[in-house]
Amino acid sequence: MHTPHLVIIGGGFGGLATAQALASTKLRVTLVDRRNHHLFQPLLYQVATASLAPTDISVPIRAVLSKEQQVSVRLGEVESIDPQARKVHLRGQTGQDTLDYDYLVVATGVRHAYFGHPEWSEDAPGLKTVADALEIRRRVLTAFEQAEWEQDPKARERLLTFVVVGGGPTGVELAGALAEISVNTLRKDFRNIDTRQARVLLVEAGPSLLGAFDPELQEEAKTELSALGVELRFGTPVTQVTSAGVRIGEDMLPAATVLWAAGVSAGALLEPLGERDRAGRVMVAPDCSVPEHPNVFVIGDAAHLKQADGVVVPGLAPAAVQMGRHAARCIEADLAGKERRAFAYRDKGSMATIGRNKAVLQSGKVRMSGRLAWLAWVFVHLWELVNFRDRVSVFLKWAWAWWTWDRAGRLLWDPHEGEAPQRTPDQDQHRGAA
Amino acid sequence: MHTPHLVIIGGGFGGLATAQALASTKLRVTLVDRRNHHLFQPLLYQVATASLAPTDISVPIRAVLSKEQQVSVRLGEVESIDPQARKVHLRGQTGQDTLDYDYLVVATGVRHAYFGHPEWSEDAPGLKTVADALEIRRRVLTAFEQAEWEQDPKARERLLTFVVVGGGPTGVELAGALAEISVNTLRKDFRNIDTRQARVLLVEAGPSLLGAFDPELQEEAKTELSALGVELRFGTPVTQVTSAGVRIGEDMLPAATVLWAAGVSAGALLEPLGERDRAGRVMVAPDCSVPEHPNVFVIGDAAHLKQADGVVVPGLAPAAVQMGRHAARCIEADLAGKERRAFAYRDKGSMATIGRNKAVLQSGKVRMSGRLAWLAWVFVHLWELVNFRDRVSVFLKWAWAWWTWDRAGRLLWDPHEGEAPQRTPDQDQHRGAA
Repeated sequence: MHTPHLVIIGGGFGGLATAQALASTKLRVTLVDRRNHHLFQPLLYQVATASLAPTDISVPIRAVLSKEQQVSVRLGEVESIDPQARKVHLRGQTGQDTLDYDYLVVATGVRHAYFGHPEWSEDAPGLKTVADALEIRRRVLTAFEQAEWEQDPKARERLLTFVVVGGGPTGVELAGALAEISVNTLRKDFRNIDTRQARVLLVEAGPSLLGAFDPELQEEAKTELSALGVELRFGTPVTQVTSAGVRIGEDMLPAATVLWAAGVSAGALLEPLGERDRAGRVMVAPDCSVPEHPNVFVIGDAAHLKQADGVVVPGLAPAAVQMGRHAARCIEADLAGKERRAFAYRDKGSMATIGRNKAVLQSGKVRMSGRLAWLAWVFVHLWELVNFRDRVSVFLKWAWAWWTWDRAGRLLWDPHEGEAPQRTPDQDQHRGAA
Repeated sequence: MHTPHLVIIGGGFGGLATAQALASTKLRVTLVDRRNHHLFQPLLYQVATASLAPTDISVPIRAVLSKEQQVSVRLGEVESIDPQARKVHLRGQTGQDTLDYDYLVVATGVRHAYFGHPEWSEDAPGLKTVADALEIRRRVLTAFEQAEWEQDPKARERLLTFVVVGGGPTGVELAGALAEISVNTLRKDFRNIDTRQARVLLVEAGPSLLGAFDPELQEEAKTELSALGVELRFGTPVTQVTSAGVRIGEDMLPAATVLWAAGVSAGALLEPLGERDRAGRVMVAPDCSVPEHPNVFVIGDAAHLKQADGVVVPGLAPAAVQMGRHAARCIEADLAGKERRAFAYRDKGSMATIGRNKAVLQSGKVRMSGRLAWLAWVFVHLWELVNFRDRVSVFLKWAWAWWTWDRAGRLLWDPHEGEAPQRTPDQDQHRGAA
């Protein structure tokens, strides 16, 4: 008898949830990811802001699935999906470059997007992968290092200006952490600059921060960010990003470090699967499958699912996990000759941290902010980390950072070392700007 | 009154020791390093073999020196030293590209060297920096990933062959760790390959491992490495390294991963300082200064110092620390109008770890091997880590690894992500080899 083959693309929250939910079923499963690790993305900003190490928030996908003998893991990059032929093509590697599937679960997530300005990406990195986080860390730490020895006051000011674009949870978390780094962590380390003079701006084109939250909590977040020294700019979009700085509406603001936490977009990989929304997400049927190809599911951030109540499932980790499990149940229903059900999102609430002892949280009718919300945030995030060791490691680093204001991950290294002459990111441009 | 300016090049063991020993003196001190962190190199092989994270064994140089107000830290790369003009030139950065000094301490260490074959470096990375360690980790993990899906048996064999060149402590530690990874850590994670079939070879041109150790301990190390499954090859030099593999004497051995732990060389930076030995180290006077320039000291691995008893000071961390402190004392003696003393190396012994519960140790008349030596190794290395947080973090990771055989750092990411199409290190070559 032919054992049906399920291919899962992506080892994020959704893809892993599918693989684990199907562990007991008589399916052959192949999980493809271009990275060897599952990343706990909600804490990725802490890698970018030098609190955690990449290994604290990532686990090898193989290790997570090591006991599921019917699941194979394949490190590789998917080049294209052919839903007619039921094939997934991998970028040229060793042998077996095409995977045939009976079922396909697409859990590829999203990348940051620049509203039609891909050329901004070089000067305004986003935060989705370990490499992104380390690049942001490198830019932030390097800016302080260069400012320490910069003679020209204007150039120094530019080096000490940090702009975060986007007022969602990631933008809020990044801006809060940057403010804490300059006011507390680095204060005693420099001789020529006062790191407390650094400017951190949070720019949001919409009218408020944290659009998905209750207005009361939005206000709370504004107050707390301002108290940390973050300058908030609402209602004006970023119209240009260059190596010299960022244009907000008409105003050009010289800034060496611009971080992008604004738009996201699902990849071109999804194109053959059917209709997509403006962010490139696939419009899926109520059971998370693709209307034209019921054996293909799209889950997590890559899916656009409007539920019967009109609510679009949000791009959050818990939603991805729920959708992953749902796809698994649909496949099991098919194999058992039963009817598939529609997906129903159970909203457990959302939270965002602003800084030390500061967070906002809403869940059902509960609204919380300040220290209690922050403790809840700490507890939930520790709890959800995949393995015990990471929980202990992250807990200890947080406890240490809480007591000492220190950050464990202030490490700069050059991944390009030995390849070409060492490049400082803006040694050319900032002379021009001075 | 002119405050004398001391420039220290290098924030390794030697450079930091100098800066800290001079903290109470009326000198203006500038420490230049091209990296922002002090690295605890004795544990770097554990980053390469996925046991530790880079941040576990590194501390920001600024943080170490944050309380020494008279010490400035400068992130920058030294381009050249001009001992006649008493200047250090930095590679073009912001302003102040030249540092004038009254005293100079050169603690630049060594890089690995390829016996006149720099072209081998691409196919046989060495282990001196965080970037080196992450590159080795990437190659090792990627080789297993590729072998899992390789159809051709010969190509698979090549992917599962790991060659370590050099039988010193680093080579022994790398080979032992690689054997443990394949036999234990990865065993349950793969479906198509048996990772225990991986071959780990340790190639040493000389007659034995660990040349600096007692013959009895050399034998012990051989026995223990062999018990781990490492194949040992003595007395035959490596004559060629290519992407296909490594030539040992006349025999070409197909191998995807070749690691270099054989030769070292001090940089060209040292050339203007005077006579140098074959490895490029500066021949220094008994007080660690340079014969022609008494205001310049060379310490640590970059120095060649033959003591009165004929013993050359070895290239070990404790020797670098002692030399750093000695240079500081010489400068203080100068300032106080006193006589400088000759440096006297106090050998506290040496140790090398082979694997779980296995190490060799000699100190004075003490010779130790096995579990006791391993515990001593663990204790000494934890103790010598620079800060308390790292001690706790490393201890917990080791304890976890000891109980579970797991390794915390099995993380692959692509630092070149987004720059160019993803490159698998040998997708072209190994087809040729097949």
